Amino acid sequence: MRSYDKRDFPVGEVRRFLEPGPVVLVSSAYEGETDIMTMGWHTMMEFHPSLVGCVISSANHSFEMIRRSKECVINVPTVAIAAKVVGIGNTTGGVVDKFATFGLTATPAIKVKAPLIAECYANFECRLADAGLVRKYNFFIFEVLKAHVAVSPKYPRTIHYRGDGVFMISGENTAKYRRLFRAAML
Amino acid sequence: MRSYDKRDFPVGEVRRFLEPGPVVLVSSAYEGETDIMTMGWHTMMEFHPSLVGCVISSANHSFEMIRRSKECVINVPTVAIAAKVVGIGNTTGGVVDKFATFGLTATPAIKVKAPLIAECYANFECRLADAGLVRKYNFFIFEVLKAHVAVSPKYPRTIHYRGDGVFMISGENTAKYRRLFRAAML
Repeated sequence: MRSYDKRDFPVGEVRRFLEPGPVVLVSSAYEGETDIMTMGWHTMMEFHPSLVGCVISSANHSFEMIRRSKECVINVPTVAIAAKVVGIGNTTGGVVDKFATFGLTATPAIKVKAPLIAECYANFECRLADAGLVRKYNFFIFEVLKAHVAVSPKYPRTIHYRGDGVFMISGENTAKYRRLFRAAML
Repeated sequence: MRSYDKRDFPVGEVRRFLEPGPVVLVSSAYEGETDIMTMGWHTMMEFHPSLVGCVISSANHSFEMIRRSKECVINVPTVAIAAKVVGIGNTTGGVVDKFATFGLTATPAIKVKAPLIAECYANFECRLADAGLVRKYNFFIFEVLKAHVAVSPKYPRTIHYRGDGVFMISGENTAKYRRLFRAAML
């Protein structure tokens, strides 16, 4: 299983990898413990600051770790580790060590204590920016503080969940509609 | 350009078409006027009630129409009308009639006054459920009241925005990881 050589990436442009809607892995750390969860419900909310909103079920072991530590890393996996992504989503942290069980490598982040997952294509270090909707909707708003993105390939083959065990795998990337954009919209 | 034969679809399962992260068209109606906007920043928030959160920029002509009418329809376009989707995102309602300009067909919804777009694969009739984050983040939380989904194909070829004029087109759909799910997670 490969790790990726990564470069720093502008936090204001993480939409390039999140807006297409991939399933992501959220890693966290709290009081010496780490965890990973699988997440499909997220959206960009702002470029500057770079805000991402997402639903983290309170049934998830990661919920309290993220709520208390006020940090996480959003990691973008590719289809190469799809089976691990599903396995992580179907086991409970606190019972199993997800890094050890799924053979993933925790590497240190720069701005947060939550670890990066080396085998993911991109890693976005996040700090909780607004917890106002956590109680009512389990909805967290994070600010991306630092972004690490693989040097290659240019676009990852990501997995997108349809429910009922079915994934859509990202297909062709095309710039053929680019000429239809006004310059200010690019 | 085709319209789709559609069936009623359970509102609790619209995630099958939204969670993969496609660009959608949001149609609205207010005081006799209709509009359409292109939207990429949305997420599922709950199954029951069926909640979708999304960012609608206040710079958009649709913003006030949706805020005042408290309704919209979220329409899922396919790659077949990608050029229209880009055109809609790069013109301003109030200046042009988007249905007429882009040759799209407005058909009546059941639960809301906003029109369905016949040429889209799916149409989700929505009522504003929570406007608490509209002022701070332009973030609307809608409840899907009624869903219409094409009888075929089983999965649409949707477009997913990467920024900078680049789209990812949805690829293969696979159930090959389904055996890795616990029954309760499906």
